[in-house]
Amino acid sequence: MKPYREMSKDELTQQKAELTRQFEDAKKMGLKLDMSRGKPTVAQLDMTMGLMDVLNSDSDMTTMDGVDARNYGLMDGIIEAKHLMADVMSVPAENVIVYGNSSLAIMYDAISRSVTHGVMGSTPWCKLDQVKFLCPVPGYDRHFAITQHFGIEMILIPMTPDGPDMDLVEKYVNEDPAVKGIWCVPKYSNPQGISYSDETVRRFAALKPAAEDFRIYWDNAYAIHHLYEDKQDQILEILSECEKAGNPDMVYEFCSTSKITFSGSGIAAMASSPANLADVKKSLTLQTIGYDKVNQLRHTRYFKNVEGMMAHMKKHADILRPKFEAVLSVLDQELGGLGIGEWTRPLGGYFISFDAMEGCAKEIVAKCKEAGVVLTGAGATFPYGKDPKDSNIRIAPTYPTSEDMAKATDIFVLCVKLVSVEKLLQA
Amino acid sequence: MKPYREMSKDELTQQKAELTRQFEDAKKMGLKLDMSRGKPTVAQLDMTMGLMDVLNSDSDMTTMDGVDARNYGLMDGIIEAKHLMADVMSVPAENVIVYGNSSLAIMYDAISRSVTHGVMGSTPWCKLDQVKFLCPVPGYDRHFAITQHFGIEMILIPMTPDGPDMDLVEKYVNEDPAVKGIWCVPKYSNPQGISYSDETVRRFAALKPAAEDFRIYWDNAYAIHHLYEDKQDQILEILSECEKAGNPDMVYEFCSTSKITFSGSGIAAMASSPANLADVKKSLTLQTIGYDKVNQLRHTRYFKNVEGMMAHMKKHADILRPKFEAVLSVLDQELGGLGIGEWTRPLGGYFISFDAMEGCAKEIVAKCKEAGVVLTGAGATFPYGKDPKDSNIRIAPTYPTSEDMAKATDIFVLCVKLVSVEKLLQA
Repeated sequence: MKPYREMSKDELTQQKAELTRQFEDAKKMGLKLDMSRGKPTVAQLDMTMGLMDVLNSDSDMTTMDGVDARNYGLMDGIIEAKHLMADVMSVPAENVIVYGNSSLAIMYDAISRSVTHGVMGSTPWCKLDQVKFLCPVPGYDRHFAITQHFGIEMILIPMTPDGPDMDLVEKYVNEDPAVKGIWCVPKYSNPQGISYSDETVRRFAALKPAAEDFRIYWDNAYAIHHLYEDKQDQILEILSECEKAGNPDMVYEFCSTSKITFSGSGIAAMASSPANLADVKKSLTLQTIGYDKVNQLRHTRYFKNVEGMMAHMKKHADILRPKFEAVLSVLDQELGGLGIGEWTRPLGGYFISFDAMEGCAKEIVAKCKEAGVVLTGAGATFPYGKDPKDSNIRIAPTYPTSEDMAKATDIFVLCVKLVSVEKLLQA
Repeated sequence: MKPYREMSKDELTQQKAELTRQFEDAKKMGLKLDMSRGKPTVAQLDMTMGLMDVLNSDSDMTTMDGVDARNYGLMDGIIEAKHLMADVMSVPAENVIVYGNSSLAIMYDAISRSVTHGVMGSTPWCKLDQVKFLCPVPGYDRHFAITQHFGIEMILIPMTPDGPDMDLVEKYVNEDPAVKGIWCVPKYSNPQGISYSDETVRRFAALKPAAEDFRIYWDNAYAIHHLYEDKQDQILEILSECEKAGNPDMVYEFCSTSKITFSGSGIAAMASSPANLADVKKSLTLQTIGYDKVNQLRHTRYFKNVEGMMAHMKKHADILRPKFEAVLSVLDQELGGLGIGEWTRPLGGYFISFDAMEGCAKEIVAKCKEAGVVLTGAGATFPYGKDPKDSNIRIAPTYPTSEDMAKATDIFVLCVKLVSVEKLLQA
């Protein structure tokens, strides 16, 4: 079929009639499908049930260095968990604090602490007139929700195939002392699945921030979440790059096992410089009696090491790959060449990003809902929930079955076509 | 032996010589004993190992109301955990949020949130010139450390055998709008083991705070931590008392299983009014992906209900009672009638509180350390670590064996005598 933009008004009108018929039929099917949620599917969770057998009443509950995991103490995590999470992030274990069950909670905590206590002795952000964060877009809604919650002004930075637009990042970070941070998902980014190029990482490491308390919030959420064995993105390790560039304290890195074991019952970690970790621990020792060391023990004994974890993630990939491919196959087949949308083809992570024609995303999401397919709200991938082009839609293929994903994508492409035709007819 | 104060200078000098000899002998024993830490002993942890058998790879991981505990979602806890923790606090389940592993973390979070976002729409405390907290003393050092961390001015309120001095509490709370909270351990208080009388609880409930965002921080840490079956303190349920008194939103209540199952690997909860919980949840949904529901499931299936938990706590009591009695027996025998110290006889909780003669606590703790017995730092039970009378010492009998506790207490009473004699000689 020829690109919609090249169609005459008559052709478009005809298309619209046909698509409307199809849409009415689709509605009659009474579907109830959900492609909105970036969560593991039941098969992934079932595959991980061995985790529940690791510890039993006969287990030795002592860590490798002789700590009773069942009692108080050890604020920054058991030694074996530090090593495991360090290996996930390819950093030394001494750069790691192992926390509770949620890396998002660590990020929230980092921002909250900066607001009330500053960063390594800097002025607490609550005492400043203006605090700004850079937000590569499209990005992760829950990052943006945190900075919004604290009244931090968010500045949009367009994503490129190599990562955030670094010219803009350098300009803002190096010139404006109110810019205190940037949200990054450097590998298999949410929602595009983009991994930052080596040059991008090096330019990050070489920033010369105007603010002493500027930090890169490096959410390495999908560090080992590949979809393919033979095609995998790798990114440069940011901590050592920053150190090399003379900026050892410029990064907070985060990761978790939320999408490796059980979401919400895993372990999370932060990696940073010794100076940053010392600063964090000053609050940490006041704010908790320590994190769940028994669960840390459970995780480390289950996987043994990062190789064990990677082997586990291959099995995840076997479950997830067909779902991504089901979506991509429908998108290619139905929308290829029509010029009414573009989408990413990630090699890992949890999402596919779709860019509709400008001004169409909200309407597409609404139409999908009418036909029983729930998508992430349009705009969710932008700060304040406002996509200035009303174009980006995040597709989350992981939770439903491949069949359901194919079905849902059929509805999705139908809605994309219908809304696009209507848009072009209005023009 | 007659009271030290009634001794002549000669008698005291003679005493001092004899005690000094004993102290030198004690030092030679090379003891290494610790009565500083309020943590469960190994036998308590061993007793709880069945918790590790509750879930295995064949387990149904679905909650009572059909939620997969292994996946994202359910920010405020699984329904059965809400019921269990509600029963511990004797409140309705709908008044409860079940959190992660640490009630201290919930308290820190409550303060931190009030600092950055206020309470139910009030001015964030970081925008105020002055924020004050009432601190019943002696009290829990980690409470005071939180308020100190946020630059909150702490006002000392003396404890009485019925709880905090309510005349003072009423005066401050009802008259000073800068007073935003009070730290309470209402049952088997840390360190005195005092339980608030019904009148005290009712006077709390009837407060008429000058500040709309004043909250009682009701740390019910030892709700079911009795030492005896036939002698148990009970306190009035504060939420319903506040509601009756027309102050439904005035309390945040906290509890955890840190001293019921594994310290740091248990579950914690908060109870409050629906309006307060809604306010908390506004932040909660941004700050975490939810808490560890698998561990909540593990705990609820292990205990089945609060009766199961109480049966478990009876076994704890059997382990802890002899330790408390060992300490009290030495104190009674060695210090009874000397007029150089007073101590509490708690029916539950984790501590015994000792008041030495004014100006002696630091020196006693130092002397004990010299002889190989570690005590909680003198002053730790007061805000800023400063006991104005330098008198209070917290004794934590739970962790060592009864034999070690008796040995440690022997050293303790020796040091109390020696330091007291020296003090009287100086006078």
